[in-house]
Amino acid sequence: MVKFSAKVLDIAKRGVLLNRLDARSIGVLDGDRVQVINPTNGISVTAFVDTTITIAQQGTVGIYRITNDRLSANDGDGIEVREAGRPASLQYIKKKMDSGRLNKEETLAIIKDVVNDDISPAELTAFITASYINPLDMDEVEHLTRAMVETGEQIKFASKPIVDKHSIGGVPGNKISLLVVPLIAASGLKIPKTSSRAITGAGGTADLMEVLAFVEFSASEVQQMTEKVGGVIVWGGATNIAPADDRIIIQEYPFKIDARGQMLASVMAKKSAVGANLVVIDIPVGEHTKVPTVQDGRKLAREFIELGERLNMRVECALTYGDIPVGYSIGPKLEVIEALRVLEGATEPNSFIQKSLSLAGIALEMSGKAAQGTGAAMAQELLSKGKALEKFKKIIEIQGGDPKIKSGDITPGEHQFVVKAPTSGYVIEMNNKSLITLARIAGAPHDRGAGILLHAKKGKLIKVGEPLFSIYADRSWRLQKALEEGRRLMPVLVEGMLLDRVPSGRGF
Amino acid sequence: MVKFSAKVLDIAKRGVLLNRLDARSIGVLDGDRVQVINPTNGISVTAFVDTTITIAQQGTVGIYRITNDRLSANDGDGIEVREAGRPASLQYIKKKMDSGRLNKEETLAIIKDVVNDDISPAELTAFITASYINPLDMDEVEHLTRAMVETGEQIKFASKPIVDKHSIGGVPGNKISLLVVPLIAASGLKIPKTSSRAITGAGGTADLMEVLAFVEFSASEVQQMTEKVGGVIVWGGATNIAPADDRIIIQEYPFKIDARGQMLASVMAKKSAVGANLVVIDIPVGEHTKVPTVQDGRKLAREFIELGERLNMRVECALTYGDIPVGYSIGPKLEVIEALRVLEGATEPNSFIQKSLSLAGIALEMSGKAAQGTGAAMAQELLSKGKALEKFKKIIEIQGGDPKIKSGDITPGEHQFVVKAPTSGYVIEMNNKSLITLARIAGAPHDRGAGILLHAKKGKLIKVGEPLFSIYADRSWRLQKALEEGRRLMPVLVEGMLLDRVPSGRGF
Repeated sequence: MVKFSAKVLDIAKRGVLLNRLDARSIGVLDGDRVQVINPTNGISVTAFVDTTITIAQQGTVGIYRITNDRLSANDGDGIEVREAGRPASLQYIKKKMDSGRLNKEETLAIIKDVVNDDISPAELTAFITASYINPLDMDEVEHLTRAMVETGEQIKFASKPIVDKHSIGGVPGNKISLLVVPLIAASGLKIPKTSSRAITGAGGTADLMEVLAFVEFSASEVQQMTEKVGGVIVWGGATNIAPADDRIIIQEYPFKIDARGQMLASVMAKKSAVGANLVVIDIPVGEHTKVPTVQDGRKLAREFIELGERLNMRVECALTYGDIPVGYSIGPKLEVIEALRVLEGATEPNSFIQKSLSLAGIALEMSGKAAQGTGAAMAQELLSKGKALEKFKKIIEIQGGDPKIKSGDITPGEHQFVVKAPTSGYVIEMNNKSLITLARIAGAPHDRGAGILLHAKKGKLIKVGEPLFSIYADRSWRLQKALEEGRRLMPVLVEGMLLDRVPSGRGF
Repeated sequence: MVKFSAKVLDIAKRGVLLNRLDARSIGVLDGDRVQVINPTNGISVTAFVDTTITIAQQGTVGIYRITNDRLSANDGDGIEVREAGRPASLQYIKKKMDSGRLNKEETLAIIKDVVNDDISPAELTAFITASYINPLDMDEVEHLTRAMVETGEQIKFASKPIVDKHSIGGVPGNKISLLVVPLIAASGLKIPKTSSRAITGAGGTADLMEVLAFVEFSASEVQQMTEKVGGVIVWGGATNIAPADDRIIIQEYPFKIDARGQMLASVMAKKSAVGANLVVIDIPVGEHTKVPTVQDGRKLAREFIELGERLNMRVECALTYGDIPVGYSIGPKLEVIEALRVLEGATEPNSFIQKSLSLAGIALEMSGKAAQGTGAAMAQELLSKGKALEKFKKIIEIQGGDPKIKSGDITPGEHQFVVKAPTSGYVIEMNNKSLITLARIAGAPHDRGAGILLHAKKGKLIKVGEPLFSIYADRSWRLQKALEEGRRLMPVLVEGMLLDRVPSGRGF
């Protein structure tokens, strides 16, 4: 055990920086694990070592910011650093690589180590890859879900029911939470909705809500706000609810994998941790979504329901049509405008409104607020009487936004380009993945005004030269890049349209 | 494309550090990939982003040392930074996760990206994990081997044969290269031996050789030295020969995996890249090694031979007894002392001498230097006439060491503890893994003097109180730790010895 003088380093990452000579005398190399202890508060964390010759003098330990968020050291504090052992969870990950089944304790050990930074991102990736190739069975999924819940904060509401809702994603423009949450809260039910930011999409619900209000709150703030106004729409990543899940999602991102077991656990851990006992899950089905066929969708639904039973939650799943975008807008501001318009009274787009009412209706029926078969109609009434808008304003207000905001106040990206139909005919194809890619190239979700506005959807007859879709961007170079890529991606196809023209090939 | 002022950061890692606002304006988050271009030399590298508020001001890009080793920027240079695309190799890794077979181009793309830092350690781990669970077939192994060779430096000797030798490891005390290389060089053959440092072991050959001389040389220095004195023993990691292999090994380390396909490729890529055409491979077989049975050993031998044929190398494999240590010493200095003593004329330990002579003999026969069946005898003669010692001194000298060094000049760790037999009986068990673990706890391989010296080997009759083995350490706290753990590990068992005594359980 050697004592060092702390030097907090403002780099937003985990780890410590040791002088090369100090590292050698502790017996560690770059990338090795050390135990770092702050004797003034007794906090001990594991960290991975970087080395330097000059930035940390001998006797000084540099502590990167995220590690110091836990360690709470100040410059000059006496900090103990020693070689850390190999965490037992590495064995369990190896067991999963070798097709073993993990028991409750082994799973909990892995997830604890994930949350405590005891295993590296690469080690976590090994676990994710192994669980993807050697899928988790339902017992393992239950262990994983419980471990995710237990290693984070949990909300305990004084009274039930608590409703929650989740879409498993893959469909662009899926802004329905902006309607479903106010609808359910307007009925008198409680819905503490934690959402994600976009990982592979063009805008997660949290990215959308952030156009209107703050989304970063603690678990207890989520509880208090929900008690007060009936619902919230916040970013789950800020709550410390099921924090392991966020770590896992980050590592899955490069490969765009969403292993079944981890997806089940991810969704249900968040629902369980916020205290929900009635859960509606939207499973978009279609060739271009995560769930290609209705059979696959039913199977997944049964798994959600079974996992729910194991965790004392009632789950209903809605298989929805997911092969084209929900509504006409893709990208944070564009989607928020569309949602606000509907709350303000617009009766279009039908796909968006009907889907939202159906899902809200299921929750209303599950809770007993509406009789079987009358949930959607009750939701329709809450919408058309303005109760949902009123509730949404309360939610915006409690989350620190401006409750007087109107759809017309929000302006999407100032750089725009209208793609016109190159020929007359029916719109025969809309490719979700290409639409998302294009919106991302245009800057979504980071650039809130970036995205795509569709002017026609699949099946519509369109004339040559009529607008097919518009690309929006906050920055002109982003728009340029989107235009270049758009020619290659061709996300919307009109019957009879040339797919390529050699040698000068242009889609539009 | 945005231009930044360079600030070289002395942290021994890859990556760049951007001000958070700059990162946002480029459109990247922590952990995202950027392309970094130094316009003064045209070099472009991929790097992963860390962010800061204060360490890099807006308009400044911090460049960590290993990334700057390639980029060669100086403080204040104008550096371009832009969001980098997703490398295609991620798709190929995903394909392997999905049980696909990788073709030559896909494999080369992955390995190129590994060497160029275009994929992260976590992404590489996904590839390794996927290749471990979905094993590479021989075509894929050949692609991998060729890709490793092509993405590094290669040595082309003017004349053949070029001999090389490899032990696949897992046996403690396997210092035979210190004999085999001088023996082969003394016969007039050339052997440009690149070795590893210990990853999971108590001392790699490079760690051992570093007790006597420098081991970090470039590929062209390896070639020149080999041309001059017939052989070298260097650290492969410094040569840029098959550099992808080192990256892979680092990521395998936490799980102690050594997937068959990667192991084959790793060994043979290094042999191919140094220009070897005659290769002897030592496959230690035994319950406690990487290869548990003779059948497994033969299968692995056939794979080495087949891969050799595909790469125009003649390969012979020697299955050796690997269940107990080679010789009596484990740990850098202790092993070097034992090897030097043998070169100086000692006729013990027999296991070490016979194994070395057999392996050298195979190479002598393959090359035609010795007639079939006479190689070991010829090697014995080179040893007993002092030719091997003479050659070893030349090798030490050309690598910058002191050629006059004698075994008696080297002193192992000053902190020692002799473990005595707790009872009389035969030595019935020596556990390789426990011996290695104990040597590592005592400080090996970083502490060159640390390790274990066995006083009796399996099968020997020993009396109560006689020395069983000694633990050496350079630092007293390391010795203490080894003593504590040794009680639990009990690496050497004597017939009739109590394995535990409840409640005060002590092995020794």
